[in-house]
Amino acid sequence: MGLSPTQLGMSARVYAEYETPPQSRSLSDIVRQAGITADLAAVEEHLSARTASRSRLLADAGAHIIAAGGKRLRAALVVLAARLGAYEAARARRPAIAMELLHAASLVHDDLVDNAGQRRGRVTVHERWDKDVALMLGDYFFALAASELAAEPDPRIIRFYANAAQTLVEGELSPVTTLEPLETALAQYFTKIGSKTAVLFETACKAGIAVAGGDEAQIAALGGYGYDLGLAFQIVDDVLDFIGDEAALGKPAGNDLREGTLTLPLIYAVAQSNHPLLREVARTARPDPGRVPQLVAVVVGAGGAVRAMDEARALVSRAAAHLASFPPSPARDALATIGDFVLERQQ
Amino acid sequence: MGLSPTQLGMSARVYAEYETPPQSRSLSDIVRQAGITADLAAVEEHLSARTASRSRLLADAGAHIIAAGGKRLRAALVVLAARLGAYEAARARRPAIAMELLHAASLVHDDLVDNAGQRRGRVTVHERWDKDVALMLGDYFFALAASELAAEPDPRIIRFYANAAQTLVEGELSPVTTLEPLETALAQYFTKIGSKTAVLFETACKAGIAVAGGDEAQIAALGGYGYDLGLAFQIVDDVLDFIGDEAALGKPAGNDLREGTLTLPLIYAVAQSNHPLLREVARTARPDPGRVPQLVAVVVGAGGAVRAMDEARALVSRAAAHLASFPPSPARDALATIGDFVLERQQ
Repeated sequence: MGLSPTQLGMSARVYAEYETPPQSRSLSDIVRQAGITADLAAVEEHLSARTASRSRLLADAGAHIIAAGGKRLRAALVVLAARLGAYEAARARRPAIAMELLHAASLVHDDLVDNAGQRRGRVTVHERWDKDVALMLGDYFFALAASELAAEPDPRIIRFYANAAQTLVEGELSPVTTLEPLETALAQYFTKIGSKTAVLFETACKAGIAVAGGDEAQIAALGGYGYDLGLAFQIVDDVLDFIGDEAALGKPAGNDLREGTLTLPLIYAVAQSNHPLLREVARTARPDPGRVPQLVAVVVGAGGAVRAMDEARALVSRAAAHLASFPPSPARDALATIGDFVLERQQ
Repeated sequence: MGLSPTQLGMSARVYAEYETPPQSRSLSDIVRQAGITADLAAVEEHLSARTASRSRLLADAGAHIIAAGGKRLRAALVVLAARLGAYEAARARRPAIAMELLHAASLVHDDLVDNAGQRRGRVTVHERWDKDVALMLGDYFFALAASELAAEPDPRIIRFYANAAQTLVEGELSPVTTLEPLETALAQYFTKIGSKTAVLFETACKAGIAVAGGDEAQIAALGGYGYDLGLAFQIVDDVLDFIGDEAALGKPAGNDLREGTLTLPLIYAVAQSNHPLLREVARTARPDPGRVPQLVAVVVGAGGAVRAMDEARALVSRAAAHLASFPPSPARDALATIGDFVLERQQ
């Protein structure tokens, strides 16, 4: 693919926001300013140690996944949420590790279901080894995540974890099946991204403040922040699939359409344009893989990506409002700034 | 296949033990005599209720698995172990349900890895639906098991669970790779069956006595009972693959050999016979699928099944010895009798 935003007929507005954001924040800058760089380095170190296994295959494949990195955004949310309470590094570390393991497990199994060849520009586990190793590695990470939390004295944490694990799976099996009427499509879309993405963000934040002695109101407030942030994160992910840079994403543009996954930019494009290609997709709810490049351009041209970004921006504002009950602190600032990071990210 | 024990050239001794056991105990008889029939019916009811899901696919595939039944031996072990302490039905029920869910999850994923078409005479989930549903259903059951235990106030229980889940996966990836020397083959075999089978039996027993207020010594004793019983159970399973009745097992005889899985009857046959076919298998550690019927007969003729059964019998005795520190009770009698059931079972 490799179409530039201009080739895609992207509006000046989307171009301005995505190609040259006014101030590109990196997560590591935010982490540094909040003073939790060392905490996250310790999480990383423990994560590597935990994923060692007596089984050579599990150890190798696990190291492949852990070394691939990722942003460790969920670990950062746990630590920052814990910093809003009575912070203890050793206790916050456990849910931070568990959330990253649960996230990694679900990615490995999702890639297997989607038969994806690459993730973050690296070959996937089932491609590098085989399907059985990917299956078992995911199971192993699920078990490791539970092990990590089994040492936590507050029983609410394992409850949060178990609920998240259950919801993640239900999310994977809750597809968007229709593009019209708009209300139905939106309800299906938000159910899906709520289950597959937002619940893990919510759980990370709730677990973080809970292990730091937060009360129920604080847990609910941070849960609300995490859930809304997670919805915004997934919407931006889905927008980037239309307008992102292939090299930065590590996967070709239009990937969702190619796999028949119906996301918010397409839903909004169908709602606000009578382009024949969109009419056809609306009728069948099955994008024709052969017309993906054209469909990507039509969706962006119809303003689907812009409206989806408006939605993400509104969710980030709603997320930030949940932080109002906490006194100002570097951690609170960092959580607010992560909202901007989520909106501005290129990958 | 459908070869009778006689056609297989089975020794009179094995025939006597397997074809017409002196007193064939059923698990439901044992359960009735111990007075826990109602307790297990409640487990069954909760198990069905728990596996309902918002996702129609998960609910349907989950019901398929749960309805397939199985012996619920792990649930019975939890309840009987709890009966040795201060029994509370509602607390014992949680680990009973969790152990059955964890067992079901690992079966669904194992069948997927082994590409098995049938399990207990019923079509497997990945055959009836597809591989993705089997993958997600296993994940869902893992999550449900953790959910079930998240409500348990004693934090040791979730630790037992997490350890078992981790060990199960490691067991799946710890194959027996060599048949000689005998010591190496036995070490690999017992590592594998310890991880893939015995740990779950051990965990069921430990969790049962722990929720009933057992002390560390009692937990260790019942853990030892469960582990040894589990080893015996798996050995009998592996023997039945050589001499069992296809209709009763719901899978063809020689299945393990056909899949290249090296088990105890073969290991012992290689150790005590110079039959050319066994020499060849010992050299390659890869049974030739075309010669499975012949190899089954050679292994049985070489006394591999008899010696494996001797081993299982010794393990059941060792398991029973762990019960000596508990005062006599219907539950203790039932646990001892389960050892005989494990040795006598036909499927």
